[in-house]
Amino acid sequence: MSKKLLKNAYVLISADDDVEKFDILIDGDEIEDLLAPGDSTEMDLGDVDEYDLTGKLIVPGFINTHSHSVMSYFRGIADDLSLNDWLFKEMLPREDFLESEMAYYGALVSMLEMISNGITTFVDMYMFTDEIAKASYDLGIRAYISRGLSFDTDEGWNRRIKENIETYEKYNGLDNRIYIGFGPHAPYTVPMDKLQEVAEIAKKYNTHIQIHLLESANERNQYNLLDVENTGLFDLPTIAAHCVHVDEKDIEVLSRKEVNVAYNPISNMKLGNGIAPIVDMFDKNINITFGTDGCASNNSLNFFNEMKFGGILQKFKYGPDRFSVEQILRMSWENGGFALETNIGRLEPEFKADLIVLDMDSFEFFPNDLSRLKSHIVYSANPKNVFATMVAGKFLYYDGEFLTLKEEKEQIYEKFHKFYQRIEDKYNNSDHSDSYNDDRDI
Amino acid sequence: MSKKLLKNAYVLISADDDVEKFDILIDGDEIEDLLAPGDSTEMDLGDVDEYDLTGKLIVPGFINTHSHSVMSYFRGIADDLSLNDWLFKEMLPREDFLESEMAYYGALVSMLEMISNGITTFVDMYMFTDEIAKASYDLGIRAYISRGLSFDTDEGWNRRIKENIETYEKYNGLDNRIYIGFGPHAPYTVPMDKLQEVAEIAKKYNTHIQIHLLESANERNQYNLLDVENTGLFDLPTIAAHCVHVDEKDIEVLSRKEVNVAYNPISNMKLGNGIAPIVDMFDKNINITFGTDGCASNNSLNFFNEMKFGGILQKFKYGPDRFSVEQILRMSWENGGFALETNIGRLEPEFKADLIVLDMDSFEFFPNDLSRLKSHIVYSANPKNVFATMVAGKFLYYDGEFLTLKEEKEQIYEKFHKFYQRIEDKYNNSDHSDSYNDDRDI
Repeated sequence: MSKKLLKNAYVLISADDDVEKFDILIDGDEIEDLLAPGDSTEMDLGDVDEYDLTGKLIVPGFINTHSHSVMSYFRGIADDLSLNDWLFKEMLPREDFLESEMAYYGALVSMLEMISNGITTFVDMYMFTDEIAKASYDLGIRAYISRGLSFDTDEGWNRRIKENIETYEKYNGLDNRIYIGFGPHAPYTVPMDKLQEVAEIAKKYNTHIQIHLLESANERNQYNLLDVENTGLFDLPTIAAHCVHVDEKDIEVLSRKEVNVAYNPISNMKLGNGIAPIVDMFDKNINITFGTDGCASNNSLNFFNEMKFGGILQKFKYGPDRFSVEQILRMSWENGGFALETNIGRLEPEFKADLIVLDMDSFEFFPNDLSRLKSHIVYSANPKNVFATMVAGKFLYYDGEFLTLKEEKEQIYEKFHKFYQRIEDKYNNSDHSDSYNDDRDI
Repeated sequence: MSKKLLKNAYVLISADDDVEKFDILIDGDEIEDLLAPGDSTEMDLGDVDEYDLTGKLIVPGFINTHSHSVMSYFRGIADDLSLNDWLFKEMLPREDFLESEMAYYGALVSMLEMISNGITTFVDMYMFTDEIAKASYDLGIRAYISRGLSFDTDEGWNRRIKENIETYEKYNGLDNRIYIGFGPHAPYTVPMDKLQEVAEIAKKYNTHIQIHLLESANERNQYNLLDVENTGLFDLPTIAAHCVHVDEKDIEVLSRKEVNVAYNPISNMKLGNGIAPIVDMFDKNINITFGTDGCASNNSLNFFNEMKFGGILQKFKYGPDRFSVEQILRMSWENGGFALETNIGRLEPEFKADLIVLDMDSFEFFPNDLSRLKSHIVYSANPKNVFATMVAGKFLYYDGEFLTLKEEKEQIYEKFHKFYQRIEDKYNNSDHSDSYNDDRDI
């Protein structure tokens, strides 16, 4: 792969920098250098593909630290139901009908949506981890994937652990881009001794943990974070999704154990769970990131929405002068890199070339005074403004086109809808009035 | 103007219909008929321009019932300040430097953003009403415009009333598309006897009222809605923006007087004002609509954000099984038409041909099962999905292009930024440490 030079664009290196003009030189999957405008003409860069990005703004790609990509099939199924009806009558019975090939295409469609919306890395917990890993590999997006692990019987538990390990052995580290962790669903679906077992296995494989923590109010009566801490789980690099109903003591645990928190503002509100105390967690130096959660509870994978809604929810909770644009951008970028222990989320030499190109020549970026662009990214932009998305030095999306599809786009869309119809037909022909799927992973 | 036939698309006539295939026949500024697929080939429709919209979904255009379009210059000025600092140190001093030609281009840029985001009608309150009316007329968008009226001195008050009346006489009813109302700013900036005066004038001119009501908590101590009722203001068709801090008695007044409410969820949250009790107001049969408010407190004019965010805020407040997708779409469409006493917000014969064309062939609309499309519009779509926008039978926007610009797009953008810089230069060179603009209209 020859080097690439992204020329003539404005660049925001990180949340705390100013917007400046640089040419970005990319070698392989990394940023090699940032050159002052004009400097490249006087240098011998060798064989270089040049991209003229005049009128564009280059920023780090968004890092989505909580998702369930296969759930694209379930977008818009049930918006106006209670949490219980949504989960037990609509979601779980349909999940029973998922099969491997379906999972591949469901995940693929979510990844295409994420890529076109500027997400370059996603963290995923679900069944069918092989298929999610394969779809990520095929498309070129950066992925951190865990098998959702819940406990019902020893047999079911052991089968899921085995699946998780098998995916790890097959995919972990592939292309320096796909990483497999372990995904104990939540402390109310996995007993403490089993959490300890996961901690030991994850330690052996030297990988990360994904878990749901204190998403809904009634979880407060079901477990204690001190007990979770005692299992050793938090000794591993951990991303805890939600943390809406944390109290002061919980925040102390998360802070002490350096647990990373994924803030999922839209899903939390849509399911009626509330507003996570993000500013309080910031004040205790907890590393906070953003997650979209799955399509079924969001209902899109639009990172701009998470930043804007997440931002104004905190302003509502703590006052309009708290939770700055810079904090929100740090959460979207380098905090994600920190949580994943990977050089992503900043546009600096030796960081991965994971970046997006935004179109500044659009109302959402007006006035396009350089000092206001950070605000525009957080509070004004939308997916229409994403011109291109690059992961690991490769453009996956450019000017409306996907560049790394293994099949025709139309074919992917057709298969997705064929599988969708198969799920719906089975669902409509089954008795799901009292359904419960033990293999609960959402 | 010859007739138009929009062919082969799916159509959602109103929030309470099902999505079906129809061809839409448009004559002048109105919908003449909805034809079953294929029927048009057997009919003699005379001279007709045909548009093949295969794979598209046609829905009513969004009706934005509260905005301050000139404020596009102030997007992203001050996101992380307290309300007082935002208003007195940043907004009002800059407004002092606005001039007519600037106002025209500021309003124009907001209208272009609205049009490209699927808004076909907007309701606006500001200074420079002549310029806003002229920009609306030039572009072809439907507009209901009022001079913001606040009381400082009799002289200032009389000047503003005079301006409002002059704009009325010049523009009201133009093209059956531009209507001028009266805009008393709020009961805390206009004394009750002056509200009564406005009521009498508006009655004489047989037009509508726009007003801000109970936006922030401290307004509760400053006036009583019963007193406002006694001025006679609510005997006119009235749109009351915000109504965040209404109690049971206030809701009774609004219900009894059939006051229309504009829900501005994003602005209300961003400025820390809170969540309006929309579901309670619904339950008292109040007609509720959506507003974006101005760019300075939002920071975009993205109607999709209002629906989604407005929706999940009510779910958070009242539970996930309240505030249905259909309610949200009614608020976005026909409730706006009802508030404005105009045949807009439904795609039926004799209604105005104000509609938008959405691209269903996009992830945001997957699975594109017809029964899920309403949900996708509210909770998944974004401005990228807007393929075309028609107002009064004329396409203003089609496949990424604006069709009714009086100047080159580049020239508009350049003037906008030139004026923006002029405001900033004056602001930076002035002493605005203790500024207060009596002509307060936001």
